[in-house]
Amino acid sequence: MLAKPAKDRFFEDYAAGDVYEFGSIALDEAAIVEFGRRYDPQYLHVDPERAAEGPYGGLIASGWQTTATAMRLFVDNFLPDGASMGSPSVDELRWFVPVRPGDVLRIRVSVRSTRISSSKPDRGIVETQVETLNQRDEVVATMRAVNFMRRRA
Amino acid sequence: MLAKPAKDRFFEDYAAGDVYEFGSIALDEAAIVEFGRRYDPQYLHVDPERAAEGPYGGLIASGWQTTATAMRLFVDNFLPDGASMGSPSVDELRWFVPVRPGDVLRIRVSVRSTRISSSKPDRGIVETQVETLNQRDEVVATMRAVNFMRRRA
Repeated sequence: MLAKPAKDRFFEDYAAGDVYEFGSIALDEAAIVEFGRRYDPQYLHVDPERAAEGPYGGLIASGWQTTATAMRLFVDNFLPDGASMGSPSVDELRWFVPVRPGDVLRIRVSVRSTRISSSKPDRGIVETQVETLNQRDEVVATMRAVNFMRRRA
Repeated sequence: MLAKPAKDRFFEDYAAGDVYEFGSIALDEAAIVEFGRRYDPQYLHVDPERAAEGPYGGLIASGWQTTATAMRLFVDNFLPDGASMGSPSVDELRWFVPVRPGDVLRIRVSVRSTRISSSKPDRGIVETQVETLNQRDEVVATMRAVNFMRRRA
């Protein structure tokens, strides 16, 4: 848990080396199929019968649902509220282990670096490694995120 | 347009240097707020009044909604159906231009490389650059995607 509530957080409340865990969100078959139908309608994500015959031996969540779920936990627990200024990029998005119906996801956020923006000194840049884990403590996905945050006045 | 319908596509139907454009999907304010509330509830994405006072001068779509929208166009138009075997990774995800209510998105897919898997010779690996554009032909986001596809028997 971060010390301050989201509305009181600014760039200065994040430090390299900090590690946090937040969760959890459960994904059932209906949620996986619903996301798949809207954003990633491959049979692997929307058709349990065909998926059972496919390379993963059953329905799996879209990788974009895994990242969106991680983002929800990241916003609800880690980011500042008013001081959040968006993100320019994510790097090294990796999906290691399929997410299946009944899985329960949480995230581990490690702050890699923090620095003040040289071009816009009202804000800082926080780089994090975000790992998504399941209920068996397997790391199912990782990404390197960058966030802009306003500095405390 | 790819020559074959999705159900008849295999790894061999993709070649380095191929470039395709597919679209379009429109995002209105209700769709932006709905996605934001579920997956990325920062005020920038869910609160038009507060967002108007924020760094972007108005409501903007979550970057994850932009990528999910691009994925929908990628699945509907580019990927094979039965021969699609998932993805291990995305690299260099970049968000350049905010997506705002009323924007209409399309994608440009450039095949960067294709190769047969050395560890699993039943499949190939297709690497693409996916650019997402708006109705003013601005590139709003890019990513480098990797997809596994079954080889034709």
